[in-house]
Amino acid sequence: MPEEKKPIVAIIMGSDSDLKVMKEAAVVLEEFDVPYMLTVMSAHRTPERATQFAGNASANGFKVIIAGAGGAAHLAGVVAAHTTLPVIGVPVLAKSLGGADSLYSTVQMPPGIPVATVGVDAARNAGLLAVQMLALSDPTLTQKLSDFKKKLKKSVEEKASTLEKDGWKKYLKE
Amino acid sequence: MPEEKKPIVAIIMGSDSDLKVMKEAAVVLEEFDVPYMLTVMSAHRTPERATQFAGNASANGFKVIIAGAGGAAHLAGVVAAHTTLPVIGVPVLAKSLGGADSLYSTVQMPPGIPVATVGVDAARNAGLLAVQMLALSDPTLTQKLSDFKKKLKKSVEEKASTLEKDGWKKYLKE
Amino acid sequence: MPEEKKPIVAIIMGSDSDLKVMKEAAVVLEEFDVPYMLTVMSAHRTPERATQFAGNASANGFKVIIAGAGGAAHLAGVVAAHTTLPVIGVPVLAKSLGGADSLYSTVQMPPGIPVATVGVDAARNAGLLAVQMLALSDPTLTQKLSDFKKKLKKSVEEKASTLEKDGWKKYLKE
Amino acid sequence: MPEEKKPIVAIIMGSDSDLKVMKEAAVVLEEFDVPYMLTVMSAHRTPERATQFAGNASANGFKVIIAGAGGAAHLAGVVAAHTTLPVIGVPVLAKSLGGADSLYSTVQMPPGIPVATVGVDAARNAGLLAVQMLALSDPTLTQKLSDFKKKLKKSVEEKASTLEKDGWKKYLKE
Amino acid sequence: MPEEKKPIVAIIMGSDSDLKVMKEAAVVLEEFDVPYMLTVMSAHRTPERATQFAGNASANGFKVIIAGAGGAAHLAGVVAAHTTLPVIGVPVLAKSLGGADSLYSTVQMPPGIPVATVGVDAARNAGLLAVQMLALSDPTLTQKLSDFKKKLKKSVEEKASTLEKDGWKKYLKE
Amino acid sequence: MPEEKKPIVAIIMGSDSDLKVMKEAAVVLEEFDVPYMLTVMSAHRTPERATQFAGNASANGFKVIIAGAGGAAHLAGVVAAHTTLPVIGVPVLAKSLGGADSLYSTVQMPPGIPVATVGVDAARNAGLLAVQMLALSDPTLTQKLSDFKKKLKKSVEEKASTLEKDGWKKYLKE
Amino acid sequence: MPEEKKPIVAIIMGSDSDLKVMKEAAVVLEEFDVPYMLTVMSAHRTPERATQFAGNASANGFKVIIAGAGGAAHLAGVVAAHTTLPVIGVPVLAKSLGGADSLYSTVQMPPGIPVATVGVDAARNAGLLAVQMLALSDPTLTQKLSDFKKKLKKSVEEKASTLEKDGWKKYLKE
Amino acid sequence: MPEEKKPIVAIIMGSDSDLKVMKEAAVVLEEFDVPYMLTVMSAHRTPERATQFAGNASANGFKVIIAGAGGAAHLAGVVAAHTTLPVIGVPVLAKSLGGADSLYSTVQMPPGIPVATVGVDAARNAGLLAVQMLALSDPTLTQKLSDFKKKLKKSVEEKASTLEKDGWKKYLKE
Repeated sequence: MPEEKKPIVAIIMGSDSDLKVMKEAAVVLEEFDVPYMLTVMSAHRTPERATQFAGNASANGFKVIIAGAGGAAHLAGVVAAHTTLPVIGVPVLAKSLGGADSLYSTVQMPPGIPVATVGVDAARNAGLLAVQMLALSDPTLTQKLSDFKKKLKKSVEEKASTLEKDGWKKYLKE
Repeated sequence: MPEEKKPIVAIIMGSDSDLKVMKEAAVVLEEFDVPYMLTVMSAHRTPERATQFAGNASANGFKVIIAGAGGAAHLAGVVAAHTTLPVIGVPVLAKSLGGADSLYSTVQMPPGIPVATVGVDAARNAGLLAVQMLALSDPTLTQKLSDFKKKLKKSVEEKASTLEKDGWKKYLKE
Repeated sequence: MPEEKKPIVAIIMGSDSDLKVMKEAAVVLEEFDVPYMLTVMSAHRTPERATQFAGNASANGFKVIIAGAGGAAHLAGVVAAHTTLPVIGVPVLAKSLGGADSLYSTVQMPPGIPVATVGVDAARNAGLLAVQMLALSDPTLTQKLSDFKKKLKKSVEEKASTLEKDGWKKYLKE
Repeated sequence: MPEEKKPIVAIIMGSDSDLKVMKEAAVVLEEFDVPYMLTVMSAHRTPERATQFAGNASANGFKVIIAGAGGAAHLAGVVAAHTTLPVIGVPVLAKSLGGADSLYSTVQMPPGIPVATVGVDAARNAGLLAVQMLALSDPTLTQKLSDFKKKLKKSVEEKASTLEKDGWKKYLKE
Repeated sequence: MPEEKKPIVAIIMGSDSDLKVMKEAAVVLEEFDVPYMLTVMSAHRTPERATQFAGNASANGFKVIIAGAGGAAHLAGVVAAHTTLPVIGVPVLAKSLGGADSLYSTVQMPPGIPVATVGVDAARNAGLLAVQMLALSDPTLTQKLSDFKKKLKKSVEEKASTLEKDGWKKYLKE
Repeated sequence: MPEEKKPIVAIIMGSDSDLKVMKEAAVVLEEFDVPYMLTVMSAHRTPERATQFAGNASANGFKVIIAGAGGAAHLAGVVAAHTTLPVIGVPVLAKSLGGADSLYSTVQMPPGIPVATVGVDAARNAGLLAVQMLALSDPTLTQKLSDFKKKLKKSVEEKASTLEKDGWKKYLKE
Repeated sequence: MPEEKKPIVAIIMGSDSDLKVMKEAAVVLEEFDVPYMLTVMSAHRTPERATQFAGNASANGFKVIIAGAGGAAHLAGVVAAHTTLPVIGVPVLAKSLGGADSLYSTVQMPPGIPVATVGVDAARNAGLLAVQMLALSDPTLTQKLSDFKKKLKKSVEEKASTLEKDGWKKYLKE
Repeated sequence: MPEEKKPIVAIIMGSDSDLKVMKEAAVVLEEFDVPYMLTVMSAHRTPERATQFAGNASANGFKVIIAGAGGAAHLAGVVAAHTTLPVIGVPVLAKSLGGADSLYSTVQMPPGIPVATVGVDAARNAGLLAVQMLALSDPTLTQKLSDFKKKLKKSVEEKASTLEKDGWKKYLKE
C-alpha cells in the first residue's frame, strides 16, 4: 500500500465482512499508484464516525470516496449527504434477494444527493471509476487508463487467439 | 391535532411529497388520542437535522418514531442509528420498481439496528403499531386497541351482512 | 435461559427447521436478561394452538411476540389478528424466490393489523426490537440498550483500528 | 343467483374492495348452475369468523372454497388450515409489487396445507376450477365443461375467421 | 405402489430430472392408498404424447392430473387445454430466476383454462390437493384427511413439547 | 396486405386482445413486402388448431412463425414443439407482474425446443427478425435490411441535428 | 444554454423520447454554469456515431459523459468502452419490468469498464454527479456545490417549518 | 470441429469464463455438421474487434451469429447493431440477480434492432435455433432437424417406458 503519500481516495465499508469484496478497489488503486485509505465504518453502528469522516473528507485531502455495503446499504448515501465529493457506491451481495436489496438501496437516491453506483460486488470497477475521476485533472492517470484499456484488450485478444488456434476442447482442458 | 399535550410519537418523512401517504399515521394517532408531532426531515438533504432529532428524541419525550421515505429509503435506518427508541419504517411507493426499492432499503437493516417495517405505503398500520407499543405501559390504550379491533371486525361483519342479504349484484351498484 | 422469571417475550416459529435462524432472537433476549419463551406453532398445521396462544398472550403476561416463518409466512399475521400486543415478524429464507415470498407475506399486512417486520432471517434484530419496545417502560433496558449501542460501536471501531494499522492484506490473512 | 339451492361453493374475500375482481367466480358458477354463497371475511380483521366458517364448511354442505385476497394474502391459507375441503386461492392485485406479494403469500404454502392457486386476479378461473372439482362426481357438470370448452374454442375460431377474412386493419377499426 | 388398482391420479413431469421433486406426490398418494400412475412426458419434446394422454385421461379413468415442470413450464397448461379434469401444476425450481419462471408460467393461465398451482417444488402438497379433490366423493378419504391433519398437528405439538421442555440449546444439539 | 402472394410468415396470437401489439409485426412485413398471414389461435382454448397449424406450417409454405401471447404465454412454445421452423416469441405485457410472466414463459424453453424471444411487446422487432431470417436466402431482403438500417440511422441523425441546432428547449415545445 | 463556452459535459440519450427525462441533467448544468452539449445517439441505430463520439470525446474537450437509455440500455456501456472519461448512466424507465431492465443493463458492467449509475430516471442526479467530478479540479464548482447543498437543506427546513407551524391539514390544502 | 469447411455460424462470447456454457452451442452445431467459428470478443473490452467482426460477418460468409454474455450483457446487441444477419443472444447466468440482469439486457432491445434471445444459459438452444434458420435454405438440415426431434421424442419415451415399467423407486436407485 502506498502509505507514504497522503491518501486521496477513501475506501470504506459497512462491515469487515465486506473486505473480501471491497479489497478489489484497493488492488486497482495500487495498480494505478493512487494513494488510498481503507477502513470500516457503519452508517448504523458508527454513525458519528461516518458523518464526521464524510464531513471532513474534503478538508483531509480526499478527492473520491468509495463506499461498499450490503442489505439496506445506506453507507454510500449517508456519506454523500455530508460531502460534496463524488461518492461511489458498491452494492455488496447479501444472503437473500440476490443483491437487489443492496443495489436498490445504493442507487435509488433522491434528487440532490447522487451516488455513483457500480454493479453488485463490483469493487474493482469502483476503483477504476475513482481513477477516471482523478484523471480529469491528472494527465498521468489518463495515460495509465489508456494503457490499462490496451492491456485489457490485449488480454482478451490473446485468449481469443489461443481459443481460435487450439479450439475450445483443448482450451477447456488446460 | 392534540397539540396541547407533549407529543410522544414523531412522524417524520423524507419529503413533503410523502405527506399524502404519511398523514394516515397521524389520523390513527388522533383516533387514539396520542399526541404526536409531524414534520419533514431528510436523511440526505438535512442529515444533521435528522441525526440531531433522533439523538434527542428520547430526551425530548418521544417514545416511538415513525419514518417514511421512498426509493433508497434511508431515513428510518439513519434515525434508528441515533436512538434506542423503536423506529417504525414506512416504505413509500416511488415511480419505478413497484416499491421494492423502498421496502428493501427500509427492512433489510444490519444486525444491531432494527427498523420495524410495515407494508408499502402502510402509514396507517405504522400508526397502529406505535399505539401497540405505547399500550405496553398504558392500559387505556390497550382498551382502545381492543375496541378498535372490535370496530374493525364489526365493520367487516356489516359489509358481509349487507352483501349476503342483497347479493353482490345489488351491492356493486350502490 | 432465565426460566425462573415469567416470560414476557414469546418467540414462536412455524417449524422447528426455523430454529437455527430464530434462536438468535433468544440469544439477544438472554444478553438483555429478558425472560422469554420459545416454541413451535404453525398457522396452518396447528391453527388453534396459534390462535389460542395469541388470544391469551396478553393475559398470560406476554408483552411482545416474535414470530418467524418462511414461504407463505402467515404466522405473524395470524397471531397479530388475535392480539393487541405488538407482533414482530421474521421472514425466514426459503429455498426458492430468494426470500421475497417470506418477506412479502409477512410485511404486506392489510390496514388495521400491522406486523413489525425485520429483514429476511434477521431474528437478532427482532430480539433487539422487542427489547426496544420493552424499554419504553423499563429504564434499566434503556440503559442496557445504550450500552449495547456503545459496544456495537466499539467493536466496529476496534476492527477499523486494526484494519487501518495492519492494512487489509495482513487483516485478511489473520 | 341460484339461492334456492343449498350453496356448495363458497366465495370469500378479505375485503369488499376485492368484490369487483372476485365476482367473476360467481358469474362462472351461475353459468354452470352451481349454487354458491359469496361473502366477506378477513383472516386478520374477523379471524374467528374465518376459522369458524372454515371449520364448519364441510358440515354446512360446502364442497369447495374460493378465497381471494391481496397483499399479505393469508385468507386462503388460514381457511385451508381449518378444513379438509379443497381451497382455491385468488391472489388479488394490490397497488405495489405488481401482484407478486399476493401471489407468493397465496401459493407458497408449507407442506401439509395446499392452496390451489390460480393467476393474479383470475377469479373466473377459480370458478372454473371449482366446477372441475365438482364435476368429478357430477356427470352433468362434466358435460357442461365439455360444452364450455367447445364454446371457448368456437369463440376463438370465430374471431380468427373474421380476422382472417377482413384483415387486421378492418378488424381493429370495428 | 398400489398398482393392482386402476390408477385414478396421474403424476406426469416434463423430464426425469424432475423426479426427485415429483416423487413426493407419489409418496403422499401411497400414504392415502390412492392408486396412481407416474410417468414422463414433455409438452415440447413429446407433444402428441402429452395431448393424447390428456385427451384420453378421463376416458382412461383418471380423475386428477398432477403435472410438474421447470423453466417455461408449459406441461400443466398444455394438459389442461385437452381435458376437463382438474390439473394441478407443480412449478419445479430451475437453475436461474429463483423459480419465478416456473411459477409464473404455471399459474398465470388465461381465462377458461385454470391450473391449480401449488408452491415451487411443492409436489407433496400437489398430492394432498389431489386427495382433497377425490375426497369430495369418497368419505374414506375425507376421514383419512382428517386423521392426516391430526397427525400433522400432533407432530408439531410433540416437537413443541420437546422444545419447550428441553430448551432450544439442547434441542439443537440432538 | 400482400395477400396475392402465398404467405411465408405466420403471425399468430393467443387472443384478439393481443392484436394492438402484434399488428406491428404485420406493419414491418408489409414494409419489406413479405407476404404474411395473421390470425388468432390459442394454445389453451384451441389447442388442436394450434398444433395442426404448427404441424402443417412448413408444408403450407411458411418459413417463419411469429407467436405472441401474455401471462403464462405458452403459444410460441407449443407451436415450436410441432415444427422445425424457427418460431419467434413476443411476450405480451399483461396486467400484473410487469411482463415478467409473459417473458419468462416464452424464453425459458427446455433444451431441444428453442423460441427466438424478443422484448416485451416488441412485435415490430419480431417482424424484423423474421425478415433477417428470410434474408439468409433472399438477397433482395438483405438489401432492404441494409436500406432499413440506413433509414433508421438517418432518422436518428436528423433528430440529433434538429436537437443540436435548436436546443432542447425549443425541441420539446414543438 | 451557455453555448458560447466550449462544452465540457455531453448529455446523450438513445432516443428523443428520453428527452423529457434527460433534460433535467441539462437544467442542473445550467444552474452550475457548466457548458454542455446535448444530443441523441443510439448504441444500436447509430453505433458508429456513438463510438466515434466516445472515441473523440476527450480530444474534443469533454470531461464527463452522461448517457441515458431505457430497456436493454447499452448506450452508457458502449460509450464507456470507447473512452477513459467517466461515464454516468441514467436508466430510463420503460413500459415493462418497472425499470429493472434499464437499471440492470446500465449498472451491471463487467470488470474494467465501469458506468457510474444513478437511479431510474434520475437525470438531475446525473447532472449533479458530473458537477461533483468537475469540482475536483474547479474550486468555484466546489463552492457552488456547497451553496447548493445549503439551499437544498434550507428548502427542506422551510417546508418543515411551515408544516410544523400550520399542521398537515392546512398544509395539504394549500 | 469441422474446420475444413468455411464457418457459417459464429459463436462469440464476452469472456472465456462463458465458454463452459457457450460450448453447448458448438456441440449442437457439430451434431448437425454445421461449420462454425468460436471465439471471445467483448463489447466493452474489445469494442472495435466486436464491431469489425459484426460489420464484416456477412461478407466473411457468416449466416448467423450466436452471442453469449452475462451481467449487463451488451454483446449481442452491439453485434446486432452492426449487421443485418440474425443475432441469437444467450444470457449467461452471473453471480447476482439470478440471471435477470443478463436476460433483460439481452432481450429488451429497442425497435429496429432485434436480438433472438434464448433462455438463461441455453446455449444448446441457441445452436438449434441457428440450425433452424439455416434450414430455411438447406433441406438437408430440415431433414436432420426432423430426425433430431424424433430422437428427442424417443429419448423421452424410453425414459417414460423404463419409469413406467420399473416404478420410480427402482428408477431413482439406478
